[in-house]
Amino acid sequence: MHPDEALARLAREHAFPLDEEIKIGGQYVPVLLDGSSLYISGQIPRIGNEVHFIGTVGAGIGLDDAKRAAAISVLRALALAKSALGSLSRIASVPRITVFVRSAPDFTQQSEVADGASAALYAVLGQTGVHTRTSIGVLQLPKGAAVEVDFIFGARPAN
Amino acid sequence: MHPDEALARLAREHAFPLDEEIKIGGQYVPVLLDGSSLYISGQIPRIGNEVHFIGTVGAGIGLDDAKRAAAISVLRALALAKSALGSLSRIASVPRITVFVRSAPDFTQQSEVADGASAALYAVLGQTGVHTRTSIGVLQLPKGAAVEVDFIFGARPAN
Amino acid sequence: MHPDEALARLAREHAFPLDEEIKIGGQYVPVLLDGSSLYISGQIPRIGNEVHFIGTVGAGIGLDDAKRAAAISVLRALALAKSALGSLSRIASVPRITVFVRSAPDFTQQSEVADGASAALYAVLGQTGVHTRTSIGVLQLPKGAAVEVDFIFGARPAN
Repeated sequence: MHPDEALARLAREHAFPLDEEIKIGGQYVPVLLDGSSLYISGQIPRIGNEVHFIGTVGAGIGLDDAKRAAAISVLRALALAKSALGSLSRIASVPRITVFVRSAPDFTQQSEVADGASAALYAVLGQTGVHTRTSIGVLQLPKGAAVEVDFIFGARPAN
Repeated sequence: MHPDEALARLAREHAFPLDEEIKIGGQYVPVLLDGSSLYISGQIPRIGNEVHFIGTVGAGIGLDDAKRAAAISVLRALALAKSALGSLSRIASVPRITVFVRSAPDFTQQSEVADGASAALYAVLGQTGVHTRTSIGVLQLPKGAAVEVDFIFGARPAN
Repeated sequence: MHPDEALARLAREHAFPLDEEIKIGGQYVPVLLDGSSLYISGQIPRIGNEVHFIGTVGAGIGLDDAKRAAAISVLRALALAKSALGSLSRIASVPRITVFVRSAPDFTQQSEVADGASAALYAVLGQTGVHTRTSIGVLQLPKGAAVEVDFIFGARPAN
């Protein structure tokens, strides 16, 4: 399946609208192409204007919901990448994702939460979506989100 | 305004001396140019030898002070970049900053703290300073600093 | 000393077996070469299948043990880099390491913990191992590890 179609399918599964607009002209941006590296700002599980999965993983938020939150963060990143590149077929690699999990003090399954992000990348990009990753348990995240993920993609030139 | 002048002006506003020396020969360094990427080690709001804004944001440290702390961390990074490159006019892009905020458990305005870093980058570098960023709330930082920021800059070759 | 020999020597000091296999075909990987950048996933102080130094630095885990934990995380990364590249002599630079320290609330010596990682890189790679770094105190890490470190190396083409 073409990765743009795979993105559309995964977005439907999460009721995620693929009309993300890239804001231009602020002091920072959600996505920036630097040479052949596409950097994506840290993404929280926002759908439209609403942040989903606000809370602490291992306390109010269970592992399955945390994995969903990680998948939605990936969806946002892929939507941004598609807007910036025109098509996800221009993604050549995913050298790095970092998964920050707002964690209860005794919650140690940050890697399992990150599996939700990894599975979403793989579902959309296939073998191209294979990546290195770092998973961290943090005290707090913007808006109280349960998960935040940032990304470095490798990009091909436009044809 | 030339970015080196803009740096001098912002430094004066924060009483920040622009005589940062780059230590050479340790096991790690504050700045390293790798190809066209200039990496800067995590910077805390140190002015001279003194760390300012020691404490927890949302508890002892308020939002305005946290933004100032983030701006000073940016000043340090820009001073280091200038020392390494000769002039800030060699900075071509700012693909990524990561803003770590030492946070009280219920403090969720990490993005607002990061705005202090973004505004400082933009004040000095203008449109070149537009960047992607990730904001995280952490339990603790070196020396008890309220904020730490690290950076990847894109650099032009020297003329 | 050739860096591969220096790695073998440091591995012996830590009773670390250098037979790390790179898992292929998962949704994520421990090491990924993207152009001339070699990314390494976050490494915890695992020796074989066992995670050492589980606990909180500044509470159950002291500074010396935390530095050892950081050194073992570096050993893992270097073993992975050697597997991926054939020889550590292909490492050209270490632009960035990030050292996450699972910290007690009042523990502020994250930089001193990171010195354990920096010393290990320098012991194996010499001047090539000089790097920028960021040290952070976090609430929790995968498997409850005391330390996690991730890496970006610069790599030379194979001869």
